[in-house]
Amino acid sequence: MTRHVRVVGIGAGDPDDLTLKAVAAIRSADLFFLLEKGSEKQDLAGLRRRILNRHARPPYRVVEIDDPVRDRTSPAYVDAVADWRRRRADRYEQVIRDEVPPGGSGAFLVWGDPALYDSTIAVLHEVTARGAIAIDYTVVPGISSVASLAAAHRLSLTRVGRPVQITTGRRLAEEGMPPGVGDVVVMLDARCAFTEIAGDRTDIFWGAYLGTPDEILVAGPVTQVADQIVVARAEARRRKGWIMDVYLLRTR
Amino acid sequence: MTRHVRVVGIGAGDPDDLTLKAVAAIRSADLFFLLEKGSEKQDLAGLRRRILNRHARPPYRVVEIDDPVRDRTSPAYVDAVADWRRRRADRYEQVIRDEVPPGGSGAFLVWGDPALYDSTIAVLHEVTARGAIAIDYTVVPGISSVASLAAAHRLSLTRVGRPVQITTGRRLAEEGMPPGVGDVVVMLDARCAFTEIAGDRTDIFWGAYLGTPDEILVAGPVTQVADQIVVARAEARRRKGWIMDVYLLRTR
Repeated sequence: MTRHVRVVGIGAGDPDDLTLKAVAAIRSADLFFLLEKGSEKQDLAGLRRRILNRHARPPYRVVEIDDPVRDRTSPAYVDAVADWRRRRADRYEQVIRDEVPPGGSGAFLVWGDPALYDSTIAVLHEVTARGAIAIDYTVVPGISSVASLAAAHRLSLTRVGRPVQITTGRRLAEEGMPPGVGDVVVMLDARCAFTEIAGDRTDIFWGAYLGTPDEILVAGPVTQVADQIVVARAEARRRKGWIMDVYLLRTR
Repeated sequence: MTRHVRVVGIGAGDPDDLTLKAVAAIRSADLFFLLEKGSEKQDLAGLRRRILNRHARPPYRVVEIDDPVRDRTSPAYVDAVADWRRRRADRYEQVIRDEVPPGGSGAFLVWGDPALYDSTIAVLHEVTARGAIAIDYTVVPGISSVASLAAAHRLSLTRVGRPVQITTGRRLAEEGMPPGVGDVVVMLDARCAFTEIAGDRTDIFWGAYLGTPDEILVAGPVTQVADQIVVARAEARRRKGWIMDVYLLRTR
C-alpha cells in the first residue's frame, strides 16, 4: 500500500505568504514532518508552530527529523553533500516507514519554495527510487525568498529581454559575475561574496529575515553599501544566533 | 494627497495558488485594474473574474486597461519595448489619476509573480519618477509559472551548489545554452527555441496552462520529445487561441 507524501512550500517567513493550496494541504494532513536545522531551530520552529496552530486541524502529530550532520570540513563539497543526502534518505525512509501507515499520508513543510536550494524533493526522489517502501509525493509551490526579496524592494528581477541567474555565494566568490548576465540573485552566502565584486557599476538589493518582524533591507551601489550590509549582517546574526539572507546584484 | 497602488501577484493560473496576503489585498481593495492582452483575453479574464467573485468584497469597480499595441515588426526589440512602456506609463498615469481619488487606493492583479517578465512594476516606477501625480506602490509576491512548473514536475530547479538561469526563448535561440549553466528556465518562447538546442545530453521539462484544467506536461530527453511538444503546443494554441508555457532545460 502506497504512502502519500506532500512537500509543502510555506514561504520565506511571513505566514501570510502561505497559498490557499498550502493551507488546504495543512488542513488535510494529520502528520507533519519538520526538519530541524541547528541554530535557526528555535525561531523558525516557533514560526512554523504558529502556522500549524493557525491552520492544522487537531488532532495532528508532529515528527521532528534531526538533520544528519554534514561534513563541512570536506574540500569535496559535492561529494560531502551527496553523502549527506544519502544519510538523509536513510532517515526519511525510516521515518516515513515508521510514522506513516500504509495508505496514509504525511506532509513536509519546507521554507520558501521547495524548488530552490532545498533537498527535500531530491531526497524523496531517492527514497522512491530505492523502492524499499512504496511512496508517492506531490509538491505545493511556495513563495521563495527570491520572490519576497523582489517584492520587498519593489523590483522586477528581469529587465526587458534579459536573463536573471540564481546562484550561490560560493559560486559567486569563485567565478565572479557570470558572463552576459547583468542580474544575479545570490543565496546561501555566508561569506559576503558581494564584497569581492568589483562593483563600480553594480547595485545590490539585500534582504534578511524577509517577511518577518526582523526584516532588514539595504539597497544601493555595492561599493557604497557593502560595509553597511556586512555590519548589519554580523550584528543581526550575533543577536539572533542565525541569519537567512538573499540579494540581487544588478549591473547598471 | 498620495494615491496608493498595490501590485498583487495572483499565481500562474490555479486560483488556489493565491497567497493569504493576496487574498487580504483583494478583500481590502475597492478598485481593480485589469490589463487586457489580446488573444488570451477571454480565458484569463474569466479566471480573474472567478478570483474576484470569490475574494473581493462588493461593491468594487473593475477598470480594464487596454494594453497599447507593441510594434512587433521593429528589429530594435529593446527600443520598441521602451516606447511601448512609455505609452503604457501614459495610460497608467491617466487611469490612476482619473479612477483613484487622492488618498484612495487601487490594485493591479498580475499573473504569476510581478518580478518575472512583467512590466507593471517598471511602469509604476516610471509613473512615480515623472512626479505628475503622487503615488506610492507596494508589491505582493505571487507563485510564478516557474515555481508552478517545478512543482508540477516535482523538480528542484537547482542542483547542489549550481546555478539556475531564467531567460527568454529569443535569447536562447540567439545564444544557445549559457556557458557554465546546466539548468535553464525558458519563458516567452513563441518559436520553440528548444528544437534548436543540440540536446543529446539535455532533458526538457515543459508545461503549458499550468495550474488550470488545461494543464499539459511533457518531460524527457529533448531529442526524443521536442516534436511531441511542438505538436501539442500548436494543437492547444489552435484550440484555445492562445498559449502560456514555460520549460526547464537540464543537461545531464
